[in-house]
Amino acid sequence: MIRAGIYGATGYTGLELVKILQRHPAADIAFVASRSQAGKTLRDLFPAAPALPLVAGPDAPLDSVDVVFLCLPHAAAAETALVALAAGKCVVDLSADFRLRDAASYAHWYNHTHPAPELLAEAVYGLTEVCRAELPGARLVANPGCYPTSVLLALRPLLCSAVPLAGPIIADSASGVSGAGRTPALTSHFVEVADNFSAYKIGRAHRHLPEMEQAIGDWRAGAPPLLFSPHLLPVPRGILSTIYVTLAADANEADLRALYAAAYDGEPFVEVLPPGETASLAHVTTTNRCAIGLTLVGRTLILTSAIDNLIKGAAGQAVQNMNAMYGLDETTGF
Amino acid sequence: MIRAGIYGATGYTGLELVKILQRHPAADIAFVASRSQAGKTLRDLFPAAPALPLVAGPDAPLDSVDVVFLCLPHAAAAETALVALAAGKCVVDLSADFRLRDAASYAHWYNHTHPAPELLAEAVYGLTEVCRAELPGARLVANPGCYPTSVLLALRPLLCSAVPLAGPIIADSASGVSGAGRTPALTSHFVEVADNFSAYKIGRAHRHLPEMEQAIGDWRAGAPPLLFSPHLLPVPRGILSTIYVTLAADANEADLRALYAAAYDGEPFVEVLPPGETASLAHVTTTNRCAIGLTLVGRTLILTSAIDNLIKGAAGQAVQNMNAMYGLDETTGF
Amino acid sequence: MIRAGIYGATGYTGLELVKILQRHPAADIAFVASRSQAGKTLRDLFPAAPALPLVAGPDAPLDSVDVVFLCLPHAAAAETALVALAAGKCVVDLSADFRLRDAASYAHWYNHTHPAPELLAEAVYGLTEVCRAELPGARLVANPGCYPTSVLLALRPLLCSAVPLAGPIIADSASGVSGAGRTPALTSHFVEVADNFSAYKIGRAHRHLPEMEQAIGDWRAGAPPLLFSPHLLPVPRGILSTIYVTLAADANEADLRALYAAAYDGEPFVEVLPPGETASLAHVTTTNRCAIGLTLVGRTLILTSAIDNLIKGAAGQAVQNMNAMYGLDETTGF
Amino acid sequence: MIRAGIYGATGYTGLELVKILQRHPAADIAFVASRSQAGKTLRDLFPAAPALPLVAGPDAPLDSVDVVFLCLPHAAAAETALVALAAGKCVVDLSADFRLRDAASYAHWYNHTHPAPELLAEAVYGLTEVCRAELPGARLVANPGCYPTSVLLALRPLLCSAVPLAGPIIADSASGVSGAGRTPALTSHFVEVADNFSAYKIGRAHRHLPEMEQAIGDWRAGAPPLLFSPHLLPVPRGILSTIYVTLAADANEADLRALYAAAYDGEPFVEVLPPGETASLAHVTTTNRCAIGLTLVGRTLILTSAIDNLIKGAAGQAVQNMNAMYGLDETTGF
Repeated sequence: MIRAGIYGATGYTGLELVKILQRHPAADIAFVASRSQAGKTLRDLFPAAPALPLVAGPDAPLDSVDVVFLCLPHAAAAETALVALAAGKCVVDLSADFRLRDAASYAHWYNHTHPAPELLAEAVYGLTEVCRAELPGARLVANPGCYPTSVLLALRPLLCSAVPLAGPIIADSASGVSGAGRTPALTSHFVEVADNFSAYKIGRAHRHLPEMEQAIGDWRAGAPPLLFSPHLLPVPRGILSTIYVTLAADANEADLRALYAAAYDGEPFVEVLPPGETASLAHVTTTNRCAIGLTLVGRTLILTSAIDNLIKGAAGQAVQNMNAMYGLDETTGF
Repeated sequence: MIRAGIYGATGYTGLELVKILQRHPAADIAFVASRSQAGKTLRDLFPAAPALPLVAGPDAPLDSVDVVFLCLPHAAAAETALVALAAGKCVVDLSADFRLRDAASYAHWYNHTHPAPELLAEAVYGLTEVCRAELPGARLVANPGCYPTSVLLALRPLLCSAVPLAGPIIADSASGVSGAGRTPALTSHFVEVADNFSAYKIGRAHRHLPEMEQAIGDWRAGAPPLLFSPHLLPVPRGILSTIYVTLAADANEADLRALYAAAYDGEPFVEVLPPGETASLAHVTTTNRCAIGLTLVGRTLILTSAIDNLIKGAAGQAVQNMNAMYGLDETTGF
Repeated sequence: MIRAGIYGATGYTGLELVKILQRHPAADIAFVASRSQAGKTLRDLFPAAPALPLVAGPDAPLDSVDVVFLCLPHAAAAETALVALAAGKCVVDLSADFRLRDAASYAHWYNHTHPAPELLAEAVYGLTEVCRAELPGARLVANPGCYPTSVLLALRPLLCSAVPLAGPIIADSASGVSGAGRTPALTSHFVEVADNFSAYKIGRAHRHLPEMEQAIGDWRAGAPPLLFSPHLLPVPRGILSTIYVTLAADANEADLRALYAAAYDGEPFVEVLPPGETASLAHVTTTNRCAIGLTLVGRTLILTSAIDNLIKGAAGQAVQNMNAMYGLDETTGF
Repeated sequence: MIRAGIYGATGYTGLELVKILQRHPAADIAFVASRSQAGKTLRDLFPAAPALPLVAGPDAPLDSVDVVFLCLPHAAAAETALVALAAGKCVVDLSADFRLRDAASYAHWYNHTHPAPELLAEAVYGLTEVCRAELPGARLVANPGCYPTSVLLALRPLLCSAVPLAGPIIADSASGVSGAGRTPALTSHFVEVADNFSAYKIGRAHRHLPEMEQAIGDWRAGAPPLLFSPHLLPVPRGILSTIYVTLAADANEADLRALYAAAYDGEPFVEVLPPGETASLAHVTTTNRCAIGLTLVGRTLILTSAIDNLIKGAAGQAVQNMNAMYGLDETTGF
């Protein structure tokens, strides 16, 4: 039995992680920790949650666990990771702290000196379908961001192919409101969001951009730059990315589909949709799956990619990573 | 031209008032005031609002207006009312400060000593259809609460009749989220409200209860007590109240309908629905109307009553009251 | 392994049943049948469903199953039940066909002569918490309606007690749109439902009324009549019932709570909420649970009761019943 | 007073037109017609509509009007236009029948031989800000599609400039459900749309594509092709288009903004947003306005453009066109 501790259990991602781990046949939750809500139970905060007692982070019984999940704000996550690793525990970090390998880029985008730059090289960027060979025995996994998961899974087979690209790559994405966290803010007020749809931080302004470009660069030297336009959807959860990639030469859709089939056939959590079908949130909500549609129009490949931001985009992929770290079937618990 | 000033213009009610007054052919907005947002414009706060400059309340040019609308928290409203009345201005107060005639009851329900108890006797409780005879020349109008407007307009013809009543009156109401104001809170967070429906402060716990019982008592000595169960709806705006009144003797629906027809025929903003039709938010949203349905089942009269909480339940009724105060047709501006 | 067949698998209830049974460790889906969609797969109809082939009802391999679930319209369900029972199969009927014991009442409310009145006496009314003693070995279970499940679980401990009641009982309920089925209709059109809230068939007009009164009468001779006011909520799923029961004598809430504790302590799917807490959809959505709140105000007990209409109100309770029929722990598969 | 008749008044666009014309100080509604609902009133179909009697189209008193608005399906609209023009009436057609100047293209996209190709040359494509010089005295106005209005207003200043473009132009758009009409369909069922977001007919598959490319071609010879990806939003109304235009040479945002200011300064219904602000539905819902944001990122200009699909995208622009046809200020009635 894998014994797991969760830091920052009182947000939407933490709750989702609790739900998944509670049903997981090979894992137990040893503790749930919260800075601000210690002394309460999770049930005090969520009407459908189990009544797990919340402990303060520093009081969490680290000795009792094998692995910790960090659902903390950036910087706080890295600091807790240092403590957990020093205690010999494995870490799956759901914050952004170990996603960028370059501490200077981290400092630029997160406006904070990295608390543990010495760990950046070791951290595995946990897009499970890509990194699974590195997971068994890994000490530190940087769980990908929600938008990057939807965009990168869709781009990967194309970028890893020899198909020549012309630039830029455009990812037009829309996310449900849980992606913004549970802390009340005007931007997540029901009256502001309902009946609305809005673009924000478009172009090259969102913190998930460097994370995506890092992976893109790993997969294809000299890849075109990425433009990323997030939008806020009036739904609780889910991300749909519609991605436009211009090819540098003529192609046919069947050949491109073959690339995707080769990459994803047999993947339990990635579904390449049949010709003519485009992705929607309904394909994936409340699951750990990613649905990917392909449509070639002239020389532009339009990819549609849907995930549940709280599951494949966060807690689900974290457990998928844990499964791979411990040699379990990745689908265990789902 | 009536010159109007608005205090507390940065909430949902204030914005609605600005929209109505801007279209009003016989009124002008002289100023919009805000404690916290002075120096900005209303357009900085709402993407569809006009760019009216916000002044701090104490800096508002009271001399330039005939009437002020108070969209302030309770207590703050009464304090501003004192200043405005002292300056010879008329006041339409959209807070709860002048709705209860009994200062002790106010202190009990609002947990605050009333700042201006000497004005309570003078204030007109502004359910326009009921109080319009008192409005011309009134100095101070207490605009009714949103829930009370929906419940009281539905109950009034019955309570003012001789039909004998038994047993508690039950008002089961549901409101859109704008009723909770624009200040961010977990209870108005999109993810908490969407896909949800919840009861709160049921029975005799909500502050609108004494306001409703005061009016009920005015209309019928010895009326049964009221039970009031508010619910939070996943919609931006609108209130639907389903009200159960048990009669003490047999009756027939046609006679009861005649009471309502007598009370409301010719009312521009009250629609008594035909037999078999029940009220819904769709009857009234974005209008100043109240739709009332009647269904007699055995000895229980089931009333359904719908309003837009921001219009007939707040800003719209405030302007309707202003119209009556100044001798205009009540429908002016709608 | 229990082998199950599902008739009428292409509605929301059928899909939910497929999802539950697919995760069920002691049951297998042997077939899914559909009158209108035979030849397609379930995945053709729902983007997240498994690709189970749909067969026409008459072509379904009845021999291969132990139990059938009927998610069919009334009358069609009874006709299929006759066939299945004749073949020696157990039947869990999610339609209304076997809920009313009185064929004349059925004919009145469903406007149709009952196709199999000889089975009415045998059918077990499957409110699991109440009927579980009758389930092992039962051939025919009438799965309760969604509204009745929410109302009856809340009323049962009170009705089965000696606490004297004065009438009537008022159940003010609100349901998500999936309760109306998947067939397109103006009343379930997104634009008509979103931002709206409406009452319909209030008083004594809804088909679930006789079903509820039948159970109430079983539990308390001479119980007061029921008034039932359903409302349509702009949410996909969930039912919240706010129920008002007037007591004939003074009582205290602690004594009433003791009745509910005695009735439901240890129940895996019924949660009696602590004092001061009222039920909401968020307590139960996507679960097989029923959350019940109690608030005594004067002599009126206000019960709030929430379920997921598709799970505890339909497919979940059906599987809970199947579990009990076959001697499994009722929680198996959840 | 302009006397107006409305054909096809029972859809969402027709209702919106009725609302606008009822408030219009210089227009009267002479009749509302419906093929399927003749004999009813509009109030029978919409709970907040006025009780205007619906006549069958052939029975409509054409003699009594100056102008007719056609809210009919394509082909039916052209046939009615022929009748109205023969009677000497002006026509504002809200269908697609007169938008494409090429009858062959119409036949291809609408799968129907054009009923009145001889009128195509005369019809004014009614994007008011562009065509207003042609409107006084026009007999036949083809009101633009909703998506095209949002996309074309955003593209026009750039396309009419000398700024060189590289291709393709990508318009990623999202629309509320009222754009799909009021006829019930699974794709507009509340449960299918709520909590969902989906792409459909992406690339070069939607009927609004040729309409947009026709205008683009008029404004810029040799313009790049358009890719258009519509999405369905879980909101009743509103369109947001995020548009990517790659420039063929470096540019700076200030120069591009100057183009937009020159094009739209003084326009009552077009708002070019300040630097850093992107468009949202909240900028425009329930208004006749279009809000346009500009963000230059490298050589890609990202335009965000929002309209209310039922108003600026349909009924509102139709009245704006009528105003211009009759020499009224375009803002009359808004």
